[in-house]
Amino acid sequence: MSSPPPATPLPQPPSAAPLPDEEDDHLHTRAVADRDATRQAREQMVGQRPGTLIVREDALSPRLFLISYDENFYEEHEYPRYDELLAYFREHPDQKHWIDIRGYDDLPLMQRIQEDFRIHPLQMEDVLGDYQRAKVEETEDGLFLVSRMTEFTRLLDIDDDQLSIFTGANYVLTFQDDYEDCLDAVRLRLRTGRSNIRRRTPLYLAYALTDVVLDHYYPTMAAIGDYLETLEERIFQGRPDRRVLNRILHIKKDIVRFRRLVYPEREKIAELLRMPDETVPEEIKVFFKDCYDHAIQALDLAESYRETVSSLVELYMSDQSNRANEVMKVLTIISSIFIPLSFVVGLYGMNFQREAPDGRINYLNMPELYSPWGYPVLLGLLLLIVIGQLTYFYRKGWLTNR
Amino acid sequence: MSSPPPATPLPQPPSAAPLPDEEDDHLHTRAVADRDATRQAREQMVGQRPGTLIVREDALSPRLFLISYDENFYEEHEYPRYDELLAYFREHPDQKHWIDIRGYDDLPLMQRIQEDFRIHPLQMEDVLGDYQRAKVEETEDGLFLVSRMTEFTRLLDIDDDQLSIFTGANYVLTFQDDYEDCLDAVRLRLRTGRSNIRRRTPLYLAYALTDVVLDHYYPTMAAIGDYLETLEERIFQGRPDRRVLNRILHIKKDIVRFRRLVYPEREKIAELLRMPDETVPEEIKVFFKDCYDHAIQALDLAESYRETVSSLVELYMSDQSNRANEVMKVLTIISSIFIPLSFVVGLYGMNFQREAPDGRINYLNMPELYSPWGYPVLLGLLLLIVIGQLTYFYRKGWLTNR
Amino acid sequence: MSSPPPATPLPQPPSAAPLPDEEDDHLHTRAVADRDATRQAREQMVGQRPGTLIVREDALSPRLFLISYDENFYEEHEYPRYDELLAYFREHPDQKHWIDIRGYDDLPLMQRIQEDFRIHPLQMEDVLGDYQRAKVEETEDGLFLVSRMTEFTRLLDIDDDQLSIFTGANYVLTFQDDYEDCLDAVRLRLRTGRSNIRRRTPLYLAYALTDVVLDHYYPTMAAIGDYLETLEERIFQGRPDRRVLNRILHIKKDIVRFRRLVYPEREKIAELLRMPDETVPEEIKVFFKDCYDHAIQALDLAESYRETVSSLVELYMSDQSNRANEVMKVLTIISSIFIPLSFVVGLYGMNFQREAPDGRINYLNMPELYSPWGYPVLLGLLLLIVIGQLTYFYRKGWLTNR
Amino acid sequence: MSSPPPATPLPQPPSAAPLPDEEDDHLHTRAVADRDATRQAREQMVGQRPGTLIVREDALSPRLFLISYDENFYEEHEYPRYDELLAYFREHPDQKHWIDIRGYDDLPLMQRIQEDFRIHPLQMEDVLGDYQRAKVEETEDGLFLVSRMTEFTRLLDIDDDQLSIFTGANYVLTFQDDYEDCLDAVRLRLRTGRSNIRRRTPLYLAYALTDVVLDHYYPTMAAIGDYLETLEERIFQGRPDRRVLNRILHIKKDIVRFRRLVYPEREKIAELLRMPDETVPEEIKVFFKDCYDHAIQALDLAESYRETVSSLVELYMSDQSNRANEVMKVLTIISSIFIPLSFVVGLYGMNFQREAPDGRINYLNMPELYSPWGYPVLLGLLLLIVIGQLTYFYRKGWLTNR
Amino acid sequence: MSSPPPATPLPQPPSAAPLPDEEDDHLHTRAVADRDATRQAREQMVGQRPGTLIVREDALSPRLFLISYDENFYEEHEYPRYDELLAYFREHPDQKHWIDIRGYDDLPLMQRIQEDFRIHPLQMEDVLGDYQRAKVEETEDGLFLVSRMTEFTRLLDIDDDQLSIFTGANYVLTFQDDYEDCLDAVRLRLRTGRSNIRRRTPLYLAYALTDVVLDHYYPTMAAIGDYLETLEERIFQGRPDRRVLNRILHIKKDIVRFRRLVYPEREKIAELLRMPDETVPEEIKVFFKDCYDHAIQALDLAESYRETVSSLVELYMSDQSNRANEVMKVLTIISSIFIPLSFVVGLYGMNFQREAPDGRINYLNMPELYSPWGYPVLLGLLLLIVIGQLTYFYRKGWLTNR
Repeated sequence: MSSPPPATPLPQPPSAAPLPDEEDDHLHTRAVADRDATRQAREQMVGQRPGTLIVREDALSPRLFLISYDENFYEEHEYPRYDELLAYFREHPDQKHWIDIRGYDDLPLMQRIQEDFRIHPLQMEDVLGDYQRAKVEETEDGLFLVSRMTEFTRLLDIDDDQLSIFTGANYVLTFQDDYEDCLDAVRLRLRTGRSNIRRRTPLYLAYALTDVVLDHYYPTMAAIGDYLETLEERIFQGRPDRRVLNRILHIKKDIVRFRRLVYPEREKIAELLRMPDETVPEEIKVFFKDCYDHAIQALDLAESYRETVSSLVELYMSDQSNRANEVMKVLTIISSIFIPLSFVVGLYGMNFQREAPDGRINYLNMPELYSPWGYPVLLGLLLLIVIGQLTYFYRKGWLTNR
Repeated sequence: MSSPPPATPLPQPPSAAPLPDEEDDHLHTRAVADRDATRQAREQMVGQRPGTLIVREDALSPRLFLISYDENFYEEHEYPRYDELLAYFREHPDQKHWIDIRGYDDLPLMQRIQEDFRIHPLQMEDVLGDYQRAKVEETEDGLFLVSRMTEFTRLLDIDDDQLSIFTGANYVLTFQDDYEDCLDAVRLRLRTGRSNIRRRTPLYLAYALTDVVLDHYYPTMAAIGDYLETLEERIFQGRPDRRVLNRILHIKKDIVRFRRLVYPEREKIAELLRMPDETVPEEIKVFFKDCYDHAIQALDLAESYRETVSSLVELYMSDQSNRANEVMKVLTIISSIFIPLSFVVGLYGMNFQREAPDGRINYLNMPELYSPWGYPVLLGLLLLIVIGQLTYFYRKGWLTNR
Repeated sequence: MSSPPPATPLPQPPSAAPLPDEEDDHLHTRAVADRDATRQAREQMVGQRPGTLIVREDALSPRLFLISYDENFYEEHEYPRYDELLAYFREHPDQKHWIDIRGYDDLPLMQRIQEDFRIHPLQMEDVLGDYQRAKVEETEDGLFLVSRMTEFTRLLDIDDDQLSIFTGANYVLTFQDDYEDCLDAVRLRLRTGRSNIRRRTPLYLAYALTDVVLDHYYPTMAAIGDYLETLEERIFQGRPDRRVLNRILHIKKDIVRFRRLVYPEREKIAELLRMPDETVPEEIKVFFKDCYDHAIQALDLAESYRETVSSLVELYMSDQSNRANEVMKVLTIISSIFIPLSFVVGLYGMNFQREAPDGRINYLNMPELYSPWGYPVLLGLLLLIVIGQLTYFYRKGWLTNR
Repeated sequence: MSSPPPATPLPQPPSAAPLPDEEDDHLHTRAVADRDATRQAREQMVGQRPGTLIVREDALSPRLFLISYDENFYEEHEYPRYDELLAYFREHPDQKHWIDIRGYDDLPLMQRIQEDFRIHPLQMEDVLGDYQRAKVEETEDGLFLVSRMTEFTRLLDIDDDQLSIFTGANYVLTFQDDYEDCLDAVRLRLRTGRSNIRRRTPLYLAYALTDVVLDHYYPTMAAIGDYLETLEERIFQGRPDRRVLNRILHIKKDIVRFRRLVYPEREKIAELLRMPDETVPEEIKVFFKDCYDHAIQALDLAESYRETVSSLVELYMSDQSNRANEVMKVLTIISSIFIPLSFVVGLYGMNFQREAPDGRINYLNMPELYSPWGYPVLLGLLLLIVIGQLTYFYRKGWLTNR
Repeated sequence: MSSPPPATPLPQPPSAAPLPDEEDDHLHTRAVADRDATRQAREQMVGQRPGTLIVREDALSPRLFLISYDENFYEEHEYPRYDELLAYFREHPDQKHWIDIRGYDDLPLMQRIQEDFRIHPLQMEDVLGDYQRAKVEETEDGLFLVSRMTEFTRLLDIDDDQLSIFTGANYVLTFQDDYEDCLDAVRLRLRTGRSNIRRRTPLYLAYALTDVVLDHYYPTMAAIGDYLETLEERIFQGRPDRRVLNRILHIKKDIVRFRRLVYPEREKIAELLRMPDETVPEEIKVFFKDCYDHAIQALDLAESYRETVSSLVELYMSDQSNRANEVMKVLTIISSIFIPLSFVVGLYGMNFQREAPDGRINYLNMPELYSPWGYPVLLGLLLLIVIGQLTYFYRKGWLTNR
């Protein structure tokens, strides 16, 4: 997931990137079926003790960030060592802290964090597994929230990364396996202090993180929407080949996948809204209600794109059959005109003999051939046939391009 | 959204407008995929602080209308300045007021209104974002209702505009980003005072506004229905080309979109009906129950149009394949008749020599050519072949146009 | 809605009528899309004050019928004037009355009835609008029930008329906009007094009316079922043309429409069954439970017809493609046989010269032509080619009609 | 419904019967649409007073069976007259009785039974109508259960017969309109007394009857499954014609119908399980829970067969189009080879004159014809063209059968 | 179900096995319809007394395993005789025991176990029937759980075996009809004692067994996913024949079947989570909640594979129609080029006579033939025709492979 440096708060929507066209050869072998990350992750777990912490092979080595803030104070720092971070965190219980762990590839460290922040082993397994659907669970200290951050890649895939959020009385602890993320907008708001995010509880920060992840669904959808338009354009203008169908089906898979990502997000927020006010205060719920609307709109959009995709498939199919018709029309017109002509000229290529062997003239044998006007009349006849046929085909509308 | 001047209460249904046919070139590039307004609006918001008020770039500069009324009194006025409007409103707390803000393009003004009427920032964000699904929320002073007003445009699209309604003890505050709207029927009823709308609470006025928006779904559907009939006519009479399929899929998208607009409307009213009687009194609920029936009927109609559209697609596809059959039949009939004939005449164009080089006569070599009746008999034979084939095709029903 | 005179209690099922075949030209332009009555009715209402009574333009002038009865008494009468009817009704409070208003085209009368029977304006609007889905509502005096009576017309459409029923302590008040209806069976039972309908409350009469409407769904479905059989027969026997598809899609629309009519009927009865026993006594609910079963069966039947229709479409499509195959087979067989033959005879139509200009004999130039057995051998060869090809096609199964 | 004599307890599954193949002509006219028995039965009822007992025209004359039993006692007897049966039943109130009425064609008798066993008129109507979906209702004395017994007939239809069960304190009263049924397994268990069916209450007997009906759904499904395999085999091996599609759609209809039969069965049992323990004791519910599992499994199976059917339709369609391709390939190969050859030989059949009328030699006019090697070279050329084309088609894979 | 010996804890995912390709002939006859094991098992039961224990004909003879353990103790043993096992079990009530019965083919033994462990006859019937959907029931001593273990076989089928689990205060009793299973991972954890499985209650062991079965769904899905990729590859690279469609439909059936297996699993766990805390303590529910997530993910994956399958079918169909187009294009190009040429050369093969019988020259009869440049000009003309046509086809894009 690539995002601009922290100083540039708003990431460019990926739709700006040129869409792949020439790398088709690399693309096409994965048009429909794809190795589902979930599946692979799960396979590693087969038969493991539940709660066993396993770090994915491709995990990054962890980087530790701490943002400490209250209404009048802001400090952010990357700590090379966890002990220092923890020391600072413990020494300042009256500040609010956002501990941001990026990268999982240090199992002992992960286990230490789990113990220090009293995380349930199964929840830690969810964090490291990196394939958990969006969900919310209550913990001893607050909430455990999972969001999935999406990105539409240049290979027309939806990448999704997991953002795991634990909230406590004075901290938010987040895990992700990426150094770059889409959360800079929140960091900027914390840094500038203009918004009231610094005044509110860590749960509000958790909300802000959830919200910004949800907001990033729109550039993803925008990129898909733009690509759908490109595909439609191509169907209308050029002559769509199978690669277009391929792409359409690929995008369809993306949309289905996106829906699968967002649906649990909606469920998660709905569950948050049903939680008692002690867990999620009413004034925070107002904000999550707003998130809920956004999630529904994203689902709506996905639904509408699905409809678009199926319309595109119908257009493509109709086009294919249209072109088959066109081919057949050309064949039919040319054959229908020339086959009868060929018969006629074949007729006068016959060798019926006028002179019988005994020298008598068989006047019945092809007298046309001996008529002085035979050939011009025949040519006229052939022309008439052609004109007749062309008229017929024109009336049928086969000569116009419709 | 064009509507007649206030003196003409009932807007013309847009179906009366001639449907586009020649501008097809401009139309076709957006037959299926369209830039969803929601998406664009949301993109602007990515990473913004929730509750941040952002005015859409294409917003109109605001015009401020105030209708003040009670049972015996009616006054309407457009105020050039908000202060005057507010002064009048505050000086007459015993009258009922409908404050109608048209156009959003003045952020400071919007913020003043938000403060004066104690609107929650998230709700104000919904108002200005202009892409909120229909919904209802309770506020401190009453209700916050969002409706979406639809119009079927000449480009075969459904335009929808947002009507945001806030109710209070003695006022209704509406926002919309259009100078013209479909609410004149309500204004007329207020003005004439014949109906009991002036006697009832502002909530009843909010109901009347919701109802008139719902009523306007029918002309939209009527226009779609008329256009469907036009398309069907064209399939039946002329020879449908791909533009017809294009239109069908375009209309299908409209219907899906319409459904997406009306469905939340139904949900909204259902939620209103579930509210406690203190919030929505029983005597108002009776009217909203009526609205609920209307919303269900609109959904029913949309559902039935969807069925119609899929039937039209089936008809179109069957037509396409019918025409392919027709083309092939012509080819088959002509080829089947003339190819055998060509063989026969080719046969008698062979040069088998009757006279061997040594002068002997090979009586076996094509004696037909030397028979005095050879040519007429052959012509007769050819005729018989043609008649036989035509009979066969006639029996198959290929010569009739079925 | 045509029904036999009261003396003939059971109406003929409309399926007995001959189905339209020759009027196809008039029929075809409305095969799929149809002007939905609901839509038109609603359009008239756009922007009207809720509860505004509007009489449809095509409404009939009202006829007023009163049936008064108790266990030992029965009297039926058509009153020319409403005052007389009302007078009689008010003078006999101990009898039970069925006031049957047929035709709406007298707004002042309708308003008087509304006031006399204390009907809510919105309910009266539902009555006169004539497009209300089946529903039940509690009123001050009893219940307000809407049923929809269906009929399958000769034009293959489902006509539906609204029957609005108000019940009170000693009366049933019905509205319909048709002089003929399907309720004669109930009238007959009242008249003969054999059944215990005269002993029971007016609510039981309302049940009986609801039940007889439900019963009439079966002849409608029977007519559709019969027509489906006709269509299937035609697909199997003759050669289905597009008119058949047209009809199938038309019937499909009818079935969808029927389902839309019956579904709310089921909902209505389910709501009746959930009402408290004071409103609908347990002994009446037993009867409505029976209705509920019938409604479910009607929906089941509609569902099964939908399946039938989609099977018919599949059969039709497969037939179309079968016939395309057949056409292509004829073309292929004839071309494959004669094109090679034509080549062979063309071969021996070449003019390679045996005698060089210098008089030498080119023995290599087409010696076959000079062989005395050339022609018979060639004919034999051609025959062999034909036999070989026919054998090949026979083995492929192309010559048999499969 | 044919079943073995009582001595042979387990009926042969109908799948053993040879499936119809030659009677296709009689079968095909009812491939999709069928006269639904429900519909016909309902038509008779149109406008009838609810609770009117009507005996179907094709009903059998009743036969009366009584099985009396308790833990140590068993007696079964067919009574010619109802009075005798009733007398015995009334004289032995301490025994348990299964009164089994087969055939309805005696209305007065039916009315007597209704009165003697205090059956509600509407329930008796359900019994005699013979078209009631599976359901359960509480009666004054116990329960009223309706099951539908299925059989897969040789004409590939699902026949279903109604089994109506009334339970009382010491009796089970069953109605069916068939002399043969699938309940012999229960009779055998009663007779042998090995199972504890004789110890338990009549409700347990009702359960046993319900269970054995459910058990018989499996042979029905087995027959359908076997037939599906036969159809698949035919698609794979022979060349499927339209009759195969016809059969597939016929079987699909059966499966849909079966589902419609079993679904209410599941609902019925679910409702039984929700009944209070006084009505259905917990120890009986355990058994019905087992039935519930079976019903779900039957529905699962039906669902899976539906999938199979739609896969078969896809296979059939793909086959059809495959064969069209094959036909077209033959045409293309033969035409592509011989049409160019025909051109070449036609070329040398032209009559361009070497000798001008003035006797000069036009050496440009077809000198090939005068070359001594002209003919052999041409033949070689033709051979090369053929080889070239065959190579091309072989590389395309058109010559192999793929 | 093949698994490695106990010493190798993690079974190889079956996807490693080479997929069948050459055995296609054996495979193809069962591509779609398959003899459902459930159906066959149920058929045996028709008419049987409920709770009748019947051992399937193909059942294995039982092997009896006992693992006894507590925190500090572990012992596993295969007992040749049940009495010994039972004796040991009864003598050590303070240990925890996992009694593992593999194979059912000993009815008296099964009945003894049923009595010794107080299993309800219907539950024992479920165990032996081996076709029970996943479910959970409360028993007197604890819970009765059914899981289904899946395996993707080399014949592309999903095999599923039943694992029946009874829990008690100090034991877990499992039944399966296979000597090899997928539970070795649990055995290893018990044996090594590293995890806290030995400290916890038998219910935790039941959870661990359920979890490991769920974990094994992933290799099954992985194998299906890999096979889908193989199929997609084949569609893209080679030329898909019907066997590919066959396989796709086969896999689709597998996915549907997998879904049918996993769905009840999810239901089962959801029901477990709803059980009171006395039955399933909160600390165990945490673990089952994790299972629930896994089940949902498996269903998600299955759903996504279904989408993939339908995309593959669409690709296949589009490919088929593409290839038909290609065939037709070749035919059209060759015919369109050579048929007109043939006409032209046929024209000059006509025998119109220049010299009339009376010796006069008919200068109008085919003077071209006598022109000295006739033949070269004609050849040039033919070449022009060919070039013209090729240009036309090139512009249409028919000559390129698109």
